[in-house]
Amino acid sequence: MEVVGICGSDVHYLVDGRIGPFVVEKPMVIGHEASGTVLELGRNVKHLKEGDHVAIEPGSGCRRCKYCKTGRYNLCPDMRFCATPPIDGNLARYYVHDADFCFKLPSHVSVEEGALLEPLSCGVRACKRGGVTIGSTVLILGAGPIGLTSLLAAKAFGASRIVIADFNESRLELAERFGANCTIQVCPDDEENDVIEHVYEAFDNKQPSVSIECSGAEMGIRIAILVTKTGGKAVLLGMGKTEINLPLGSALFREVDIKGVFRYVNDYPTSLDMVATGKVDVLPLITHQFPLEETLEAFETARTGAGNAIKVLIRPNTDSSSNC
Amino acid sequence: MEVVGICGSDVHYLVDGRIGPFVVEKPMVIGHEASGTVLELGRNVKHLKEGDHVAIEPGSGCRRCKYCKTGRYNLCPDMRFCATPPIDGNLARYYVHDADFCFKLPSHVSVEEGALLEPLSCGVRACKRGGVTIGSTVLILGAGPIGLTSLLAAKAFGASRIVIADFNESRLELAERFGANCTIQVCPDDEENDVIEHVYEAFDNKQPSVSIECSGAEMGIRIAILVTKTGGKAVLLGMGKTEINLPLGSALFREVDIKGVFRYVNDYPTSLDMVATGKVDVLPLITHQFPLEETLEAFETARTGAGNAIKVLIRPNTDSSSNC
Amino acid sequence: MEVVGICGSDVHYLVDGRIGPFVVEKPMVIGHEASGTVLELGRNVKHLKEGDHVAIEPGSGCRRCKYCKTGRYNLCPDMRFCATPPIDGNLARYYVHDADFCFKLPSHVSVEEGALLEPLSCGVRACKRGGVTIGSTVLILGAGPIGLTSLLAAKAFGASRIVIADFNESRLELAERFGANCTIQVCPDDEENDVIEHVYEAFDNKQPSVSIECSGAEMGIRIAILVTKTGGKAVLLGMGKTEINLPLGSALFREVDIKGVFRYVNDYPTSLDMVATGKVDVLPLITHQFPLEETLEAFETARTGAGNAIKVLIRPNTDSSSNC
Amino acid sequence: MEVVGICGSDVHYLVDGRIGPFVVEKPMVIGHEASGTVLELGRNVKHLKEGDHVAIEPGSGCRRCKYCKTGRYNLCPDMRFCATPPIDGNLARYYVHDADFCFKLPSHVSVEEGALLEPLSCGVRACKRGGVTIGSTVLILGAGPIGLTSLLAAKAFGASRIVIADFNESRLELAERFGANCTIQVCPDDEENDVIEHVYEAFDNKQPSVSIECSGAEMGIRIAILVTKTGGKAVLLGMGKTEINLPLGSALFREVDIKGVFRYVNDYPTSLDMVATGKVDVLPLITHQFPLEETLEAFETARTGAGNAIKVLIRPNTDSSSNC
Repeated sequence: MEVVGICGSDVHYLVDGRIGPFVVEKPMVIGHEASGTVLELGRNVKHLKEGDHVAIEPGSGCRRCKYCKTGRYNLCPDMRFCATPPIDGNLARYYVHDADFCFKLPSHVSVEEGALLEPLSCGVRACKRGGVTIGSTVLILGAGPIGLTSLLAAKAFGASRIVIADFNESRLELAERFGANCTIQVCPDDEENDVIEHVYEAFDNKQPSVSIECSGAEMGIRIAILVTKTGGKAVLLGMGKTEINLPLGSALFREVDIKGVFRYVNDYPTSLDMVATGKVDVLPLITHQFPLEETLEAFETARTGAGNAIKVLIRPNTDSSSNC
Repeated sequence: MEVVGICGSDVHYLVDGRIGPFVVEKPMVIGHEASGTVLELGRNVKHLKEGDHVAIEPGSGCRRCKYCKTGRYNLCPDMRFCATPPIDGNLARYYVHDADFCFKLPSHVSVEEGALLEPLSCGVRACKRGGVTIGSTVLILGAGPIGLTSLLAAKAFGASRIVIADFNESRLELAERFGANCTIQVCPDDEENDVIEHVYEAFDNKQPSVSIECSGAEMGIRIAILVTKTGGKAVLLGMGKTEINLPLGSALFREVDIKGVFRYVNDYPTSLDMVATGKVDVLPLITHQFPLEETLEAFETARTGAGNAIKVLIRPNTDSSSNC
Repeated sequence: MEVVGICGSDVHYLVDGRIGPFVVEKPMVIGHEASGTVLELGRNVKHLKEGDHVAIEPGSGCRRCKYCKTGRYNLCPDMRFCATPPIDGNLARYYVHDADFCFKLPSHVSVEEGALLEPLSCGVRACKRGGVTIGSTVLILGAGPIGLTSLLAAKAFGASRIVIADFNESRLELAERFGANCTIQVCPDDEENDVIEHVYEAFDNKQPSVSIECSGAEMGIRIAILVTKTGGKAVLLGMGKTEINLPLGSALFREVDIKGVFRYVNDYPTSLDMVATGKVDVLPLITHQFPLEETLEAFETARTGAGNAIKVLIRPNTDSSSNC
Repeated sequence: MEVVGICGSDVHYLVDGRIGPFVVEKPMVIGHEASGTVLELGRNVKHLKEGDHVAIEPGSGCRRCKYCKTGRYNLCPDMRFCATPPIDGNLARYYVHDADFCFKLPSHVSVEEGALLEPLSCGVRACKRGGVTIGSTVLILGAGPIGLTSLLAAKAFGASRIVIADFNESRLELAERFGANCTIQVCPDDEENDVIEHVYEAFDNKQPSVSIECSGAEMGIRIAILVTKTGGKAVLLGMGKTEINLPLGSALFREVDIKGVFRYVNDYPTSLDMVATGKVDVLPLITHQFPLEETLEAFETARTGAGNAIKVLIRPNTDSSSNC
């Protein structure tokens, strides 16, 4: 294994021992944003060879159920997904994975970029679910790693105007660097209507055609529904509380579809293509890197967000110092 | 005008003077479920001739905005829709309407059926939004006119199992006659979990692939989201309160799309085809008919549901006694 | 194995030793329209039990390539498909198959119907590719087994008018029994324009919205393109010559999409649902049945079409005389 | 009127008096690639004001037929389209057009770019019909104005590799400048297989997922079908002969859909967005400009391709010398 990024869900499992219905009941290796070097191959594998760098899509379905056979394997009830209990993750020196979920990195794509295909794929999936294309106007709520990769993906899919909102100034600065047309810094005591007013201003008094909600906050979800244009899509990736008080009428009367995103499906090739052709540059997401031995410190950094941490990487491979 | 049906929205305008954002501010003619006989034609109209019976799709868009030009004219902000303030409806002896929204009824389709294409189109649209097709399993919540036409439409689109729930026994009896595979009579003091259990039983412990919510009750909407199969659709037509407490996490994690239905768009031809080819029989929906002079009584019947009223029709044409 | 139907492709392999790029180079068991009884199960199989009757979808993909993972496994380059060289078919007393491609027949669906799900799935796939739905008007060219199952499927998907053309009178009679609104008996010396004229008459001087070509004849393919309505679909299942002289301009200017159909993909559940819910009755397709010992006679019947043969079945199971 | 580009079809009408079924029977003003300045407005027009620069989408449908109401107005049988007989075009000093087909140019978009939205919209439509998106690999046959705008559009939609073929070296040079990853210069005596070999080489022995044929030559159309990847799309814009000998089997067995493109529909906003956000630069297409008085010379240049002419513009506005 070369690089394993720390995701908010990893921190949740460490701190709370659970995420919604998924409960850690016995010790579990963590880690699912990863890249590695091929050491050994199954005998039928033809698209890889020893020494290849690969990005690792962390889940694989049963390949036999209706979801798998119709191209929605992310919904497979028997999905085995790294670091979702009780399946171990890949924060380890060596790891075995299905070859068709290992994507060979061309020589000009680094293993760090390979690991970052995971959060990028979440953004890609959000854009596909929202139908983001040339001319779309996109509001992104939340500028954490997923909000920022959604921004990169929306840009690559051709959105003509992207506005992103967050509390955190340093994240909004990175968003600007990533091409956001406008950023909205939300204040802790802003009311829903204040934020909505800022959104309309940011879109020249128009409404975005797609909203991508990555904060999971009730207010964010409500705003996503209220401001999206008639006939548009509200794509919801973040999820805090299970029950939420929603202005549902606004969505129904205006046929604003509300669509969740559960991980990704067939999105790694898209993400890899974006990076390999230079459409996006994910490297600025990386704020910290640690060797495997300093995993606890890495998690502490990710948990506290110390040093304006956005994406914290761990490097299990002791030989790859040259990459650090 | 031959036949004008009374819709729940007409009753709302009469009783409350408003429906959500639409407020009656000056006297307004009511009526939008209608059929008529062509008396006179615009000079460019070629698909109709004098004496033709027609079903009248009650709204027409501006024909120039992005929604109209991309085939979603139901979302046109300048839509003129019968009996939506301040536009007068067509409960009148004579009425002028855009010819391309008048659909000629073949001789074997009655003017009563023509008027009923309106509620049927709501059901058709719900099924299209939900992707109902052969093999779909469909839960319908609410067995009023829209729930019942959704049932008819789901049947015609090939659903393999349809379950419908309501408080009202006589409506559920009609639902069975319309081909429901199972009906659930909800009791006023049933809790959410009780109803969910009944739903699972009715689907042999499986989950429906599509839920169509026509009651507008918070509990109905919550159940639609909770019971729909992973990757399925929750189609919401009914709308009571503007704000609703929703188990949103269940929808997002399982990619159950939440889709509203605002009227219909290009659905009249589908509805007419269903009736004309005998795929559905809408006539049993009619429980009462009144001449124009007895409109108040007709509304009273519709409002109170007296005599197990489902669909109440008014007949403006004094010459058509033979049809009564 | 209970029932194995003989398909035109089986006859081709027997007589010509090849179909297009697929060449028989060593002895090969034939047969791919089959049903059987479960004798033994793999240890992870949960949806079946011993003694179950199953329909057998004859191909399975590699489950790992891009086609398999995006829900188009019929295009998998490593597809293993019964009786496509060099893979043996299932015309045998015993046969092993991937459990997820074995579909349990409910008790009221016979093993004959199970075997006929194969040709029915071709018709289902054609209708899905053509977008056949309520209100579609469909022209079917060729009334052999695939033309007839396309007719049954188009009917089930809600087509409002179906016209079918063939040389053979007895097949057209069966088509009428299956619900064709009009049949066209083509004469051997009819010219293209004669047939086109008959088609327009059969559709009341309108054009079909979808054409399904099952004859493989150049004239059939040309007519499918020429008569289909602007913006419609020409779905081509039959394939005689590799090179064909086409009136392509007519398709391009009018955006009539030309779509091939290669077998089926996720269509068995649809076909089974159609049969199990009584939407279609495939049994009238069966004209002949033979025990396994009389396989040669069965093939001779299928090859010559003697006795107005449409679908000829072989019964490998000696114990199932009661079903004959 | 500010700028009117000359299209190949204009030249055809001038030289041959017809294009396929469209025949010039009386004098007709030519021109349909145009931009202008608003002089006067209809009283209900709100999105424009006097003095605005606008791009003019040259056709408008009847707004009442099924095609118009379902968002496919390009197929409207009563379409009125500039310079398609008997409708006059807009190569004139003053011209009246439906306001909703006039698209306001932001101040940083020039009237030349406005006129070029027309050929760009053909390329945009081709990409939409072909489903070009991030990761698509695209072969373009023909590097005339439409081939080149298809290239620009494919680039903007995110294609990861684009190869373009033509006889003409100077056009291929422009293609490279526009971002083609590889160009293929076809020689007059190349055989089909030679070109196919070059195509495979250009795609590293893979097959393009989409082919866009803009030459109209039989060989081009054949190659588009033969080389496109299994499950891909062959999008055909060019059309020479009405009847073409096609390797249809290759398309059908591999489910390569064959799709024509008839003009464009709702594509002007996409094209304008591409230009306005800087995703594409269409100006290098312009090789010649003439005042209205030199129209004959302009046409002669366009007809002969003298001076490596690609796009020849005419400027009807005598006041706009500063723009020349």
